[in-house]
Amino acid sequence: MKKYKIDFEKGEGIIPVIAQDFIAGDVLMLAYMNEKAFRLTQITGYAHYYSRSRNSIWKKGESSGHVQIVKEMYLDCDSDTILLKVVQVGDAACHEGYRSCFFRRIEGDSFSINETPIFDPTDVYKD
Amino acid sequence: MKKYKIDFEKGEGIIPVIAQDFIAGDVLMLAYMNEKAFRLTQITGYAHYYSRSRNSIWKKGESSGHVQIVKEMYLDCDSDTILLKVVQVGDAACHEGYRSCFFRRIEGDSFSINETPIFDPTDVYKD
Repeated sequence: MKKYKIDFEKGEGIIPVIAQDFIAGDVLMLAYMNEKAFRLTQITGYAHYYSRSRNSIWKKGESSGHVQIVKEMYLDCDSDTILLKVVQVGDAACHEGYRSCFFRRIEGDSFSINETPIFDPTDVYKD
Repeated sequence: MKKYKIDFEKGEGIIPVIAQDFIAGDVLMLAYMNEKAFRLTQITGYAHYYSRSRNSIWKKGESSGHVQIVKEMYLDCDSDTILLKVVQVGDAACHEGYRSCFFRRIEGDSFSINETPIFDPTDVYKD
């Protein structure tokens, strides 16, 4: 098998990562990884991302319990984007309680929401 | 219906855009849009992206004929990523001839390819 090399330089050390449900196939979220987050994901089998706003690595679901078990990882043709196929524990990936972060459908200059949240964020994220 | 505002500032004028097959649900590619590419996509119904390397807008499939007809557009919870649900004309989204740009499955430090190209790039991209 051939080796790959992820192009972290293009995005100044970070790359976008798409999380897709392993079974249902719906796109759950987009986040970012630096090289360390990628390695942590590979080693642990749980999705770890890099927060651009906090400048730190986070394990998805660490506070909510809604971790992502990584079943497969794919690298795109340009080696600068990763696709994770995951089992989403708790069924909801979005911190707003929705199944997917992409719950707002664009219609012209407005949006509609055609799903209901799976959990109430105030119940899940507590100090 | 509520208005949305896409956060183009966070990524210095561009945002990542995921293209997913409208029917099959597989993730085809990730590209970028600036505000003009987004508007062109909305107005024409065909996916237009922004090339970071060429600093210009391109219509997906302009040279190959493999355009993407946009059926639905979604905005994520942070307003900084878009998901397009598209009909991929020609069935293949990747310039290397594969159905999806994510054709390399990561296994440790190597990758495997478990699909065959739909077209030969040398037949499609000609000067």
